[in-house]
Amino acid sequence: MLDPLDDSYYMKKALQEAVLAYEKEEVPIGAIIVVADRVIARAHNLTELLNDVTAHAEMQAITAAANFLGGKYLKECTLYVTLEPCQMCAGALYWSQIKKIVYGAVDEKRGCGTMGTKLHPKTEIVGGVLEEECKELLTRFFIEKRSAN
Amino acid sequence: MLDPLDDSYYMKKALQEAVLAYEKEEVPIGAIIVVADRVIARAHNLTELLNDVTAHAEMQAITAAANFLGGKYLKECTLYVTLEPCQMCAGALYWSQIKKIVYGAVDEKRGCGTMGTKLHPKTEIVGGVLEEECKELLTRFFIEKRSAN
Repeated sequence: MLDPLDDSYYMKKALQEAVLAYEKEEVPIGAIIVVADRVIARAHNLTELLNDVTAHAEMQAITAAANFLGGKYLKECTLYVTLEPCQMCAGALYWSQIKKIVYGAVDEKRGCGTMGTKLHPKTEIVGGVLEEECKELLTRFFIEKRSAN
Repeated sequence: MLDPLDDSYYMKKALQEAVLAYEKEEVPIGAIIVVADRVIARAHNLTELLNDVTAHAEMQAITAAANFLGGKYLKECTLYVTLEPCQMCAGALYWSQIKKIVYGAVDEKRGCGTMGTKLHPKTEIVGGVLEEECKELLTRFFIEKRSAN
């Protein structure tokens, strides 16, 4: 039987966050954090609006989830993010000791895989969930941005 | 002639921030950001108080400096930090395109050097400024913490 709450189900919620970023003319990346089938944090990239390179979706989601849980470790949590985390976000996830990271599109240029960022030994990482949808939104954003300039 | 505003001068200010962290029973790490001989951001580690792994001194300083400047890039800025930045902070500094990073003590276990984190090609990095003072404060903190447990 199909699990109705599988990785695609949660990645769709991360994609909804990415759409919110897109609507604000931010690079469309969204993230959610789930524990025991419950979404405890939702965030989208706000680097332009906040003028802050640290305002990636994952960073905000980590802070929000820790706030919700009342503790800084996310050992039982799964992060769903539409693009492979960068060095900064993977570094933050390292400190959080998160259980699992699920990402959509690969970031071949600046993703933690290419950059060789170390994750916590207990963290599992899975990529390619709803990859096409996640990638398509990013591609559309950059095409529109280029044609506007 | 000695420059009164040399790296040691600014590292002392970062150390003052580290002492503030120490007094709050946080891992004593402090950071400041300087542009054109002016300190535009001061911060110290607050991960325990805020229950947030992202609340490293450098991350807060980056956000504060960008806020001061009204733009997210720190291309003309220098960060002084008492301990070598971790993957997360070095990753944030990569995005900020900061001009220069000056750190005190080396973090042989989790510093960006050991971890192989990439900095922006335009960023210069210098270590070992007031190394002993920076290290001594950290050593004292961990000895006291161990004896309290």
